[in-house]
Amino acid sequence: MKRTEGGVTAAKGFAAADCEANIKYKDRTDMAMVFSKEPCVCAGTFTSNIVKAACVMWDKEIVESGRCMHGVIVNSGIANACTGKEGYDACMATAKAAEEMLSVPYDTIAVASTGVIGMQLPVDKLTAGVKNMSASLEETLDAGTRASKAIMTTDTVNKEIAVTFEISGKTVTLGGMSKGSGMIHPNMCTMLGFLTTDLAIEKKLLQEALSEVVTDTFNMISVDGDTSTNDTLLIMANGLAGNQKISEKNADYETFKEALFEVCRFLARKMASDGEGATKLFTAHVLNARTKEDARILARSVISSSLSKAAIYGCDANFGRFLCAMGYSGVSFDQNDVELFFESSAGECKVFEYGVPLPFDEEQATKIMSEEEVIIRIDMHEGKEEATAWGCDLTYDYVKINADYRS
Amino acid sequence: MKRTEGGVTAAKGFAAADCEANIKYKDRTDMAMVFSKEPCVCAGTFTSNIVKAACVMWDKEIVESGRCMHGVIVNSGIANACTGKEGYDACMATAKAAEEMLSVPYDTIAVASTGVIGMQLPVDKLTAGVKNMSASLEETLDAGTRASKAIMTTDTVNKEIAVTFEISGKTVTLGGMSKGSGMIHPNMCTMLGFLTTDLAIEKKLLQEALSEVVTDTFNMISVDGDTSTNDTLLIMANGLAGNQKISEKNADYETFKEALFEVCRFLARKMASDGEGATKLFTAHVLNARTKEDARILARSVISSSLSKAAIYGCDANFGRFLCAMGYSGVSFDQNDVELFFESSAGECKVFEYGVPLPFDEEQATKIMSEEEVIIRIDMHEGKEEATAWGCDLTYDYVKINADYRS
Repeated sequence: MKRTEGGVTAAKGFAAADCEANIKYKDRTDMAMVFSKEPCVCAGTFTSNIVKAACVMWDKEIVESGRCMHGVIVNSGIANACTGKEGYDACMATAKAAEEMLSVPYDTIAVASTGVIGMQLPVDKLTAGVKNMSASLEETLDAGTRASKAIMTTDTVNKEIAVTFEISGKTVTLGGMSKGSGMIHPNMCTMLGFLTTDLAIEKKLLQEALSEVVTDTFNMISVDGDTSTNDTLLIMANGLAGNQKISEKNADYETFKEALFEVCRFLARKMASDGEGATKLFTAHVLNARTKEDARILARSVISSSLSKAAIYGCDANFGRFLCAMGYSGVSFDQNDVELFFESSAGECKVFEYGVPLPFDEEQATKIMSEEEVIIRIDMHEGKEEATAWGCDLTYDYVKINADYRS
Repeated sequence: MKRTEGGVTAAKGFAAADCEANIKYKDRTDMAMVFSKEPCVCAGTFTSNIVKAACVMWDKEIVESGRCMHGVIVNSGIANACTGKEGYDACMATAKAAEEMLSVPYDTIAVASTGVIGMQLPVDKLTAGVKNMSASLEETLDAGTRASKAIMTTDTVNKEIAVTFEISGKTVTLGGMSKGSGMIHPNMCTMLGFLTTDLAIEKKLLQEALSEVVTDTFNMISVDGDTSTNDTLLIMANGLAGNQKISEKNADYETFKEALFEVCRFLARKMASDGEGATKLFTAHVLNARTKEDARILARSVISSSLSKAAIYGCDANFGRFLCAMGYSGVSFDQNDVELFFESSAGECKVFEYGVPLPFDEEQATKIMSEEEVIIRIDMHEGKEEATAWGCDLTYDYVKINADYRS
C-alpha cells in the first residue's frame, strides 16, 4: 500500500465539483458533488441517533435497496434534520435535479447535509447548485480537493487522503474526504465521510469491510460526546481498476481492508485533532485489557471526559481524572493492576503504578503534554487486547464556537 | 413541612465544627466535622465509579455493617482516591483521632474527601484538624453554616437547607449540606452531601427512603458528565425528636420521604446552578413519556449535552441540539410526536411541534433564555410519565477552572 496524491477523485472514473450555493455561508463554497458515470457498488454506515436527518433516511434506503450508486451531493449549510416531510422533499428535489442533468436515475444519487438542525433547506438554491456542479464535474485531483473544502463547517483544515494497492496484478486506488468537527462522538461514524475506489468487489463484502473498519477508526473518536443526527459514511466502488472481482474473504479482501483501515484511521485522526476549538490530538492507548470491547470502552471513556480534555488543554498531568473516567466507563477492573503513562514526541513519563501514584517530574510532564499529540498509555495487565481512541482538548474556543453557532 | 433556618445542626443533638487544616487551601477552612453524641441510625449512597476513593470504601463498610454512626469528618483539599493502602490508613488515622477525642468507637466515624485524585493526604495535618474540631464542636446553626463553607472546593456558594415536619405529634427537623461543583454527573449522587435528622426511624427504611429520593434528585443533575470517585451522600438519624419510631411504610414514612425529597431537590438544584463556571441553571422537564425511566434518561441526556449547554450559555434557542441529545439517549421515540418549549420567568416559546420546526420570535426566545433558570419543556405525547433533570451552561470559566485545577 502506498500513499498517493488527492482524495475522492484519485480513483479512476470519479469526478467532483463544488460551488457557492449561498445556503448559509457567503463568499465560500458550500456544496460539493462526487460522481461516477460507471455505476458503483456502494456501502454505508449511518448515525445511531434515532433522530435521523432526512438525508440519512434517503441514503440508507439506497444502500439497503441493493441499487447501484452514481454519486453524492453534499451541502454544508443546513443539516436537514428535524424537518419533517419538507426535508424529505428537499432530498428528492436535489436527486431529481441531478437525474435531469446527468442522465442517471434519481434514486442512485445520495445526498448529505451538515449544519443547523431544525431549519428547512432552500430548495431553489440547492437545485441551482446541482445544475451548476453537474456542468462543471472534473476528474482532476484539484476538483476532489475543492470538494473536500466545500463540505467543511467549523473545520479548520480540509481532510482528504488517497492510497494505492495491488489486487490480482492491478493497481487499485482508494481515496476519501471527511469533515468534522463538532457534534462528534463515536456511535457509528459521527461525521460526513465519502470514500471512492475503482476496486471491483461484491456489495456484501464492501459493506462488511466498511462496518468492521469503522469500529476501530471513526467510532473511536470523540470531540464533544454529541452523536449527530447526520452522520454518514459512504463508499462507492466502480470496478474500473479491472482487478479480479473480490467475492470472498481471501488475501485480496484483506489487502483492501488494510488500505481501508489506513484511510479511515487517517481521516478519523484528522477529525479528532481538528475538533472544534482543539489545539491538540489527545490519544488514549489501552493495552492488555481482558477483551477488545473493554479496551475500546476504556479508551473512549478517557478521551471523552470533559475533565481529562481540560487537563490536556492545560498541559496538566492530572492523571486521577483519567482513572476516574476509566472507573465510570462501565468496564470492570482492579485499579491495583493498572499502570499509566503520558507520552509524546518529547518523551514519556509514568505516573501511576499498580494502584499507587508515582512521584514524577512535573516540569518534564508539562513538556510532554505540550506537544501536538499527547498519548495516555494505559496498561491494564489483565489480558491481551488493545484499542486506541482519539479525541482533542477542551478549550475556550469550543465554548465560543458553540455558544453562538447559528449566527 | 416548613423551611427553617440552618443546615446540618438544625436537628436536635447535632454539632458541627470547621478548621483551617491547610491541606490544600490557605487562608480558608478546609475541614469540617458533624457529630451526634447520641448514636445515629445511618444510610448512604455512594459513587458507582469502580475506582472508589479510600473514604468511600470506609463509609460503605460502616453503612453496610449495621453499626451506628456518630459523625463524619470531611476535608476539601485532597480526594484520597487512587492512593492504595496509604489512603486507607489515612481514613483510619482520622477516625482514630476522633475516637480518642470524643470517646466513640473509631468505626462509627465516617470520613469524606474531595479534591485532587492521586495524591496522599498529610496525616499529621488531618489528625491535628480532628483534634482542633473535636474541641470546638457547637450545636449552633452558625457552626453548621461554617461546616458547609469548609467543604466547598470550586463551589461559589455554600449549600445548606433545613425543614421541619410533624410525625406523631412531634416536630422533626431534617437538615443538610452538600458541595459540587465539578466532576458532577448523575450516577448515584456525584457529590458530597450530609443530612442530619432527629427522626426516629428503622435503618432499613432510612436507606430505602434515601435511595428512592436520590434517583429523582441528585441522580438527575449533571455538570460535566464525569462521575466522581468520591461521591458520598450520608444521612444520620439520632431519634431525639421523640416521635414514635417509623418501622413501616405508613403515612409517617411518606411525610418523612416528602421532606427528604424537598431537601435533596433543593441541594441538587443548588449544585447544578453552581456547577463549575456556570452562569445559569438549565432544567429539562420531560412530560408524557412512555415510562418513568425513559423520562429520566431523556431529561438527563439533554442537560448533559455539551452542545445544548453551550447553546444555553449563548442564549441561543438552537433547539435541534436538544432533539439530537434526545435521539442519542438510547430511548426509542418518534420525533413526529414531540413538542418542545423554552420557558423561564420571562415567558415561554414553542419551537418544535410534531416533527416540524416552528417559526418563533428570536428576540423573545433570547429574552427567555437570558434568565437565571432556563427550562426546556419536552412533551413526548407517548404516555403519562415525567421527570426533571438539572444542569448548567458550559462556559469559558468551566474550561479555565479545569485546565489548571491542581495548581
